[in-house]
Amino acid sequence: MQKPSIPKGTRDFSQLEMARRNYIFSTIREVFSLYGFAQIETPAMELMSTLMGKYGEEGDKLLFRIQNSGEKANEAPEKGLRYDLTVPFARYVVQHRDTIQFPFKRYQIQPVWRADRPQKGRYREFYQCDVDVVGTNSLLAEVELIQIVEEVYRRLGIRVCLHLNNRKVLAGIAEVIGAPDKMMDITVAIDKLDKIGVDAVNAELRERGLSAEAIEALQPILNLKGSNEDKLRDLRTILAESEIGMKGVEELEEIFTQLSNVHTAQADRSSQGRDKNCRLPIELDLCLARGLNYYTGAIFEVKALDVQMGSITGGGRYDNLTGIFGMPDVSGVGISFGADRIYDVLTELDLYPADLQSTTQVLFACFGDDELKFAMQCATALRKQGLRVEVYPETVKMKRQMAYADAKHIPYVAIIGSNELEERKVMLKQMLSGEQQLMTVDELIQQLKA
Amino acid sequence: MQKPSIPKGTRDFSQLEMARRNYIFSTIREVFSLYGFAQIETPAMELMSTLMGKYGEEGDKLLFRIQNSGEKANEAPEKGLRYDLTVPFARYVVQHRDTIQFPFKRYQIQPVWRADRPQKGRYREFYQCDVDVVGTNSLLAEVELIQIVEEVYRRLGIRVCLHLNNRKVLAGIAEVIGAPDKMMDITVAIDKLDKIGVDAVNAELRERGLSAEAIEALQPILNLKGSNEDKLRDLRTILAESEIGMKGVEELEEIFTQLSNVHTAQADRSSQGRDKNCRLPIELDLCLARGLNYYTGAIFEVKALDVQMGSITGGGRYDNLTGIFGMPDVSGVGISFGADRIYDVLTELDLYPADLQSTTQVLFACFGDDELKFAMQCATALRKQGLRVEVYPETVKMKRQMAYADAKHIPYVAIIGSNELEERKVMLKQMLSGEQQLMTVDELIQQLKA
Repeated sequence: MQKPSIPKGTRDFSQLEMARRNYIFSTIREVFSLYGFAQIETPAMELMSTLMGKYGEEGDKLLFRIQNSGEKANEAPEKGLRYDLTVPFARYVVQHRDTIQFPFKRYQIQPVWRADRPQKGRYREFYQCDVDVVGTNSLLAEVELIQIVEEVYRRLGIRVCLHLNNRKVLAGIAEVIGAPDKMMDITVAIDKLDKIGVDAVNAELRERGLSAEAIEALQPILNLKGSNEDKLRDLRTILAESEIGMKGVEELEEIFTQLSNVHTAQADRSSQGRDKNCRLPIELDLCLARGLNYYTGAIFEVKALDVQMGSITGGGRYDNLTGIFGMPDVSGVGISFGADRIYDVLTELDLYPADLQSTTQVLFACFGDDELKFAMQCATALRKQGLRVEVYPETVKMKRQMAYADAKHIPYVAIIGSNELEERKVMLKQMLSGEQQLMTVDELIQQLKA
Repeated sequence: MQKPSIPKGTRDFSQLEMARRNYIFSTIREVFSLYGFAQIETPAMELMSTLMGKYGEEGDKLLFRIQNSGEKANEAPEKGLRYDLTVPFARYVVQHRDTIQFPFKRYQIQPVWRADRPQKGRYREFYQCDVDVVGTNSLLAEVELIQIVEEVYRRLGIRVCLHLNNRKVLAGIAEVIGAPDKMMDITVAIDKLDKIGVDAVNAELRERGLSAEAIEALQPILNLKGSNEDKLRDLRTILAESEIGMKGVEELEEIFTQLSNVHTAQADRSSQGRDKNCRLPIELDLCLARGLNYYTGAIFEVKALDVQMGSITGGGRYDNLTGIFGMPDVSGVGISFGADRIYDVLTELDLYPADLQSTTQVLFACFGDDELKFAMQCATALRKQGLRVEVYPETVKMKRQMAYADAKHIPYVAIIGSNELEERKVMLKQMLSGEQQLMTVDELIQQLKA
């Protein structure tokens, strides 16, 4: 009989992989909760009418469709698997608009499915981790999301840089180079600047119908240099004639001002001045465009500094996401943490806490059935104290019991033979050093709690 | 435009519902981890070859099948959605047998999908929460699972009774009433005793081909009365001639003996003798059969005492679950917590902790933009202390900001107007009492941490 397997592009997650993923998710959740974001969940299946036409032609083709056995094979399935968390969230907001408190601060950590060709690092089932505020135009929402990025990566120990841009600035650029209707074309093309280089981007812009003059006019903008302040100053000159462009510049300035306001406060309160050093570096990056066409204001992407990995977090402001479901004029801003990539970064940089390997603190290993009964009593007492305990359930050879503890990285084994049983004690072996010590259950509890 | 909706039988989970579900799951997870169980996850999709034929003809019809857009509509889909966690778990054990440590103690909390007709309390997407030990025959595994049930419901505050039976006892009964080949028919019929009564069960047994003599011989067994000890004593007489029946009785006795061993230890160590009272009542219930045909030893079901709800947890021992995937002779035992029903029991008995309603501890509400800047500084300082804080991001009317805090059950609002800003203080309003007090940020931190 052939070994069973799973569909291509999907994964099983072992105990260690789950411990690592749970570490990432719980770190992120804890930070979200400091900012008052609350979790929601939506069904894995959405109606096809909810999903279709939201992800472009390409996206429509990547939807997994679901068939009941009741449905005829040649009927079009009416349900599909969630492709991302954004569209279900927009659907949720509109459907539950009467019971939601606005501004609505929610996060959502759930798998999504895409019928993409599987390849290294790209899966057909993967988790997304989205956090959004909808129902306010306030740029303080952007500021809090940036603070969240800073705190999540500080806690995970990953050094990152946040790239910041604004769609209104991009629209302004299109305006001032004389191609106002080509904003999306310019956006999509320069989004690739990092990947394909300036010449290929220019070629693509020509293909997309930009005039030579427009492309020429764009070059100094692509090459803006210096500090964020320098770039903003230059932009104010370049975009002076564009109302929307100037609005974008003002939004960027406001975000920087508000960030400096909270950072100053932190520095004030930190006697060691330590906070200054772990402050998130932010780069105003005019080449950052993000392909998704619902963004209308700030856009962000986060990249790890110490490993080549592309964007590990990204998002932006959208002014009309819920419009597709008939609820216009609800502005929101959100970011998405890429759990799979964060997982890979932590693995590559070896940044997981050491104690994720085993959750069990002590294994009881016994020579006989009476010893096993005593072990069950001890284990019960230890668990009452909140200690994580296993009892090897059979009296097999001690070597095999030790191998079990070893393979599971359990740090202590409490051995019980006839002598220990008689004294109502255990021989505690520290697996790393091999040291052994005879002790009572109460002493064992004290040692493990210390 | 019509309000968007979701497929029938599926649900959105709001902030409050998620907080309640997370409370249930985290309680269960904490208890699992005390016993050394570790989490795994499997993909939502399994190959149809993994799923088909595992749930009977009825079950096969309830599988949701998944189509890529690449597949032709008249091709049979090769993938389906997970129908339960048991078959994927068996598949996982066989597929990863070379890297798993046995006995393998795992738990899994994930949604499953069934194309059942939706009705009250029955959904097409719902979570299962399974905990299993495979690779040991030791009855201590049963004992630990029963301890887990006891501890989970103690922590949740739900009074329950555990019904215990053994498939070998049921086989022995079939043997001694002269219908050894009818064990499953008897099992399926008497499983309904509670629901349809003894007359209907007898009628069904006749239909299933049991002789009048066999049915007659069965009656005293269905009517066994008294304590667990009484029933076991009577069974020892009734089943004396059946080897498998006596094996089942011995297994039951061993479980009771081992449970009394750990309970005695608890009582010994508890100075108030309190533990005795919150001990899980266990009833040896010969009418408990459980329909699933892979069980071979102990079977359990848990019912809430204070509400009519059917079984809220159930499981049993299986000797050959992985055999369907070509790995015979791996015995295991597991139970499944019914998250939806536990949710309903806690709701009906109003047993949720009061502080699940809001996770945010304080909302900053401001009169002007300068106040808002100060609020952002205060919020940053509070979050550094681990406090959960929101800043209302706009300077709308104070009434609306208060209404937001009220609707979200946020217990404190820190109001900042021009006077407070000048003094670098906040006016802290306790929402329940309406009391207000002027204080510094440090005093606010102290108050919220207390």
